[in-house]
Amino acid sequence: MIPTSLEKLLSRRDDLWHHLLERSRFVRGLMAEPFDRRLFGIYLIETYHYVIHNPRHQALVGARSEAMHPNYRKFCFEHAAEETGHELMALHDLHHLGSLQEGSYRLSSALLQTELLNAYLYHVSTTGNPLQRLGYSFWAESAYQYVGNVIARTRQVLELSDAQMTFLVAHASIDEKHAAEVAKTLTSFCTSDDDWHAVAQVMEGSLQLQGNLLDAVWDEFVALRAGEDSRYRYLNVLRPS
Amino acid sequence: MIPTSLEKLLSRRDDLWHHLLERSRFVRGLMAEPFDRRLFGIYLIETYHYVIHNPRHQALVGARSEAMHPNYRKFCFEHAAEETGHELMALHDLHHLGSLQEGSYRLSSALLQTELLNAYLYHVSTTGNPLQRLGYSFWAESAYQYVGNVIARTRQVLELSDAQMTFLVAHASIDEKHAAEVAKTLTSFCTSDDDWHAVAQVMEGSLQLQGNLLDAVWDEFVALRAGEDSRYRYLNVLRPS
Amino acid sequence: MIPTSLEKLLSRRDDLWHHLLERSRFVRGLMAEPFDRRLFGIYLIETYHYVIHNPRHQALVGARSEAMHPNYRKFCFEHAAEETGHELMALHDLHHLGSLQEGSYRLSSALLQTELLNAYLYHVSTTGNPLQRLGYSFWAESAYQYVGNVIARTRQVLELSDAQMTFLVAHASIDEKHAAEVAKTLTSFCTSDDDWHAVAQVMEGSLQLQGNLLDAVWDEFVALRAGEDSRYRYLNVLRPS
Amino acid sequence: MIPTSLEKLLSRRDDLWHHLLERSRFVRGLMAEPFDRRLFGIYLIETYHYVIHNPRHQALVGARSEAMHPNYRKFCFEHAAEETGHELMALHDLHHLGSLQEGSYRLSSALLQTELLNAYLYHVSTTGNPLQRLGYSFWAESAYQYVGNVIARTRQVLELSDAQMTFLVAHASIDEKHAAEVAKTLTSFCTSDDDWHAVAQVMEGSLQLQGNLLDAVWDEFVALRAGEDSRYRYLNVLRPS
Repeated sequence: MIPTSLEKLLSRRDDLWHHLLERSRFVRGLMAEPFDRRLFGIYLIETYHYVIHNPRHQALVGARSEAMHPNYRKFCFEHAAEETGHELMALHDLHHLGSLQEGSYRLSSALLQTELLNAYLYHVSTTGNPLQRLGYSFWAESAYQYVGNVIARTRQVLELSDAQMTFLVAHASIDEKHAAEVAKTLTSFCTSDDDWHAVAQVMEGSLQLQGNLLDAVWDEFVALRAGEDSRYRYLNVLRPS
Repeated sequence: MIPTSLEKLLSRRDDLWHHLLERSRFVRGLMAEPFDRRLFGIYLIETYHYVIHNPRHQALVGARSEAMHPNYRKFCFEHAAEETGHELMALHDLHHLGSLQEGSYRLSSALLQTELLNAYLYHVSTTGNPLQRLGYSFWAESAYQYVGNVIARTRQVLELSDAQMTFLVAHASIDEKHAAEVAKTLTSFCTSDDDWHAVAQVMEGSLQLQGNLLDAVWDEFVALRAGEDSRYRYLNVLRPS
Repeated sequence: MIPTSLEKLLSRRDDLWHHLLERSRFVRGLMAEPFDRRLFGIYLIETYHYVIHNPRHQALVGARSEAMHPNYRKFCFEHAAEETGHELMALHDLHHLGSLQEGSYRLSSALLQTELLNAYLYHVSTTGNPLQRLGYSFWAESAYQYVGNVIARTRQVLELSDAQMTFLVAHASIDEKHAAEVAKTLTSFCTSDDDWHAVAQVMEGSLQLQGNLLDAVWDEFVALRAGEDSRYRYLNVLRPS
Repeated sequence: MIPTSLEKLLSRRDDLWHHLLERSRFVRGLMAEPFDRRLFGIYLIETYHYVIHNPRHQALVGARSEAMHPNYRKFCFEHAAEETGHELMALHDLHHLGSLQEGSYRLSSALLQTELLNAYLYHVSTTGNPLQRLGYSFWAESAYQYVGNVIARTRQVLELSDAQMTFLVAHASIDEKHAAEVAKTLTSFCTSDDDWHAVAQVMEGSLQLQGNLLDAVWDEFVALRAGEDSRYRYLNVLRPS
């Protein structure tokens, strides 16, 4: 009953997001505490550090040696092509946040939590069930519906225009198309309980790591705000006067 | 002088093809000796065995960790997507050659010469200069202009229709677009003599291996025709009566 | 000042272990709460699932394409050879815990936390600074000195003999030699602050993941003890009567 | 009948060597024509360029994800460790051939034929039957018995001492031990006709490529001797006066 399983996957996704949003230090902090543009800066930098890898591990799925339907390989390569360069939107937004100029700073390296997400996504893309990376796409391409109020609050508190939020705004509409393709790809190629199970596992694992990453972003902001030594000290030019 | 270098690459490609066609046992045999559909069958089988890998090693270039222009990565993934499934045209033609039915035989494994081409293309796609695989695309996407008389003679001797030559005929027109893209990609991204040199090396290496592969196809046909034991004995159903 | 840096690394390792032991749900549970052999079973199963990968990612470091001192490559391969098959000690101990027979059950797949450790170790072994995996070896080969009381309490509560604890006991003495080699390798090949920094990062990252893994082992035991549905239900044959 | 198959492999190896030696331009040239130290220099340089990869692709076999006997993995890693650094013997001999000083020249890059051997060995080490690389070791570790007269003639014509031929002389005795281990490993782990077939295929493929490589070495020497432009022109300091 493949349609049933997509339904079950949707239902599980709702549960996971509900759980994540409820427990997230990032979400609780952002909704309840004062914050400034440095938080958005940290978010954009770490987003850059994982989004740049999305097309690469996506393509590695299609390049695997296992027998695979040509249409699924094609999906992987097309999807990889479409995701290429999206990290530049995050950098664009960073450079439009305020007085942080392109070329005026040395980008900090990725946080451990960001590296963990990347390591996990390369791992599930190159080993295990070749369909399982769809579990990541399944939540990542439709995240905006769950975090609308978080984005709205960010926009309002930081007084950001659409042109300063291209990654989130433009990306949201790009992803709608992808989300439909991901659902179609899941129903076309998942043919066993093992397939659905593998997809669900990776959805859960990668969403949990995304939650950890956002919490780490919040923790880093709190430390920076407190004046502690920080890898993000170059963001202090965005500090409100 | 980048345009000069594309010109030099074109000139070198002409030389290499001229040299290959002159020395090729395959071409000399096919143009001068009698042959039957089993030769085309062997060609299609070995073509299947390398074409199926083209999108995979093409995508691996885009997935490399080296710094690379996003547009070059995108080219790699788009090109991989476009090449996906082309091996099915070779199988289609094999099944329309005569009384060889899909599912009635077990496809022989790749010849050593075919494996050598694959091994080399994976190697140059995953190590060395990230642009160098373009040297393969540069001759492969425009091969038809050099082998027109070989294809014409095959068609005539074997009395084949376009519907029996989809890989060569349909592929030829698909590849025209690719050839233009490859030339544009070369001129956009090759920025040093080292880049052009690496591309030229891979053009020479992979074309030489393609020539060896075709010679091995001819040798295998000669052995099969002589009634020797052969991995292609299942093609004897195509033997002229 | 390379010796100073080894000293600093040692001091950092002490801090990280202190922090881990203090916050660990696993350690707190094990030291303060009642538990039975199912906890050790879960620990052995997840240990099996990461130890089996140690020689593989260790060898991948030595197989990297970067310029590397031959003696460091040799260290990687020798170390990989020495670590090969150690996962069998964990299985041996599992089969000597009680009435769980080899072949009578289907080993559960790895927990997400175990997969995260594996994914991270493959990632740091195949990307980034080629020396950085030493940061994992640096704590893993000398873990026994920090967890002596945890092992002692396990032995006492579960009434285990040395023959039932081969992974921990035999491994401890094997690792002493490795620990000395790792220290020597670090001082021989780390020649810059970047090297030491990369090693320290991986020490911190992998030890944190090991802590998370142990916490997940404890959580799984608590759920199993509470009679909840569990991937480890086959361990219930080890439940005290 | 595994011992029979080792016998058959031995017999096939004899045939392949006989065939190679008979047709080799390198062997015929070296046995019949005058030559000088530049030939040995070219041989040593290309030997360096493939020997440096031996431990790396050997280790990649042991690192594969397929189920594999731990003792075979261990063999792979131990063998990789033992082969590490052997390329330095080739460089040593190059620097003791005459007035070519270490550091006084820029090593030419590998010939296409050398790259083809490397590409093939990485390919068979990372795909296909995990035992098949033993087919390379099976001839490479016992080559000296087939090329005794070639080495003797080289030594005599070039008036070389053992200290100037460490790669060939010292290596020969090291390899005796390896050859016995390879035979033992083959009989221990090859358990099906498919295994033996895969090993035999790789023996044939890699030996053929080695023959091509030696022929290319001879061709390059002939061109250098004739005063043509050459990647090895820095070897002209070894030219007899």
